[in-house]
Amino acid sequence: MRYLFLMRTGYLPLLFALASMSARSEIVFKPVEYKQGDTVLEGLSVYDDAVQGKRPGVLVVHQWKGLGDYEKKRAEMLARLGFNVLAADIYGKGVRPQTMPAAAAEAGKYRNDRLLLRARAQAALDVLLNHELTDRKRVAAIGYCFGGTTVLELARSGADISGVVSFHGGLATPTPGDAKNIKAKVLALHGADDPNVPPKDVAAFEEEMRQAGVDWELVAYGGAVHSFTDWSAGSDNSRGAAYNERADRRSWEAMRQFFAEIFK
Amino acid sequence: MRYLFLMRTGYLPLLFALASMSARSEIVFKPVEYKQGDTVLEGLSVYDDAVQGKRPGVLVVHQWKGLGDYEKKRAEMLARLGFNVLAADIYGKGVRPQTMPAAAAEAGKYRNDRLLLRARAQAALDVLLNHELTDRKRVAAIGYCFGGTTVLELARSGADISGVVSFHGGLATPTPGDAKNIKAKVLALHGADDPNVPPKDVAAFEEEMRQAGVDWELVAYGGAVHSFTDWSAGSDNSRGAAYNERADRRSWEAMRQFFAEIFK
Repeated sequence: MRYLFLMRTGYLPLLFALASMSARSEIVFKPVEYKQGDTVLEGLSVYDDAVQGKRPGVLVVHQWKGLGDYEKKRAEMLARLGFNVLAADIYGKGVRPQTMPAAAAEAGKYRNDRLLLRARAQAALDVLLNHELTDRKRVAAIGYCFGGTTVLELARSGADISGVVSFHGGLATPTPGDAKNIKAKVLALHGADDPNVPPKDVAAFEEEMRQAGVDWELVAYGGAVHSFTDWSAGSDNSRGAAYNERADRRSWEAMRQFFAEIFK
Repeated sequence: MRYLFLMRTGYLPLLFALASMSARSEIVFKPVEYKQGDTVLEGLSVYDDAVQGKRPGVLVVHQWKGLGDYEKKRAEMLARLGFNVLAADIYGKGVRPQTMPAAAAEAGKYRNDRLLLRARAQAALDVLLNHELTDRKRVAAIGYCFGGTTVLELARSGADISGVVSFHGGLATPTPGDAKNIKAKVLALHGADDPNVPPKDVAAFEEEMRQAGVDWELVAYGGAVHSFTDWSAGSDNSRGAAYNERADRRSWEAMRQFFAEIFK
């Protein structure tokens, strides 16, 4: 509608101006080593070098195979929107499981130790908060799959940030009472046919948020299964995980709308 | 973010230009008499006379007290966005129940006769489709409360329109199998604490949409009860119906995003 409106009202030159400006952006990718306890972690700092000054910060938490090309691409997309991004590393430097069983095992360590998971997320958040380009009053965390679970745990830990967004993340937690600590606004973007996040988990999550009086919203995308934003997940819903262009596009827009609200 | 971006990139003059253009809009309100069977109905045609030519059409279906100031205001807001709007009349000319019991009784007639409800909705849709300013290939229907239920029934009747949006509408239907007729994309905007639309209705609706392979999405707004978009509904959630500024704003944006997709 926005472009439609601009075209109708004769602002076509503006469109070209905007396009040429975005072409001038210079996205910088910098690996960042940091520690949680004695564990060395390696995240990726991503920002647009053509933008001046401090800007809202966004933490991006990876899927169960660890920080890789997918998260790098999402971080780049966010940097192009003007955010200062840190792609977190929850697992540790060089820990990037390549197979499904290895990824499940690695993710399982943190699913079964939520305090460790929260500590790892907080360590990444601290890097982002301390980055010179971050406007510390405007910070959010997003995550995909395992990363969605992670940012929800970060919120439950009481992290003082503006918002968290889970994309097809697991919604269950062993400590729902910790929702009382939540300061962040919560947006859960959910594939309505995701076999990994069944209706009973959705219902429990909603009740958890409700009981704690959290500012929360959940979007259910019809026809979407797990991994609906992951371009490499194929298109076979019967496998339980598949890319869904419509849900990907809509959920990204929902995140942008959420950011427009919390970063205003 | 959009305005932020424009400001950052030095397009402040554009903001003022846009503001002055929208001030030039001339919203026209015209009562329209039409019939369904032998019943005379009176809707309201609303559009921006400063905009030239055909445009997407939006049908607005009223809450249980019938077409009134609330729906007129929503129609005006939609006209300002550039749409050709018809505020429908489901009940009949002059039938505008003033009390809650009278409204419940009137709405009940249609809740208990879905074929009549669909016929009344279709009659209004026909008026919109035949309006000279309507681009017939880009038409949607939205509704509030009783009107949400109505536009979902309109979709279940097989109406060949681009989309329907329900705001705190009842989601239950006596004929869920009719979802197989749905051609429209469906967006249900739901107050997560709405006592009139309990979790079992939400679950049944989702299963109905799923089984029929509909393109659907449901958004649950935490902390919102029934009537969350109605400015006159007060702020006491314990009454089961109350205005919720956050859910109102977010749901309106969700509708706009949906329109941007279906009217592209």
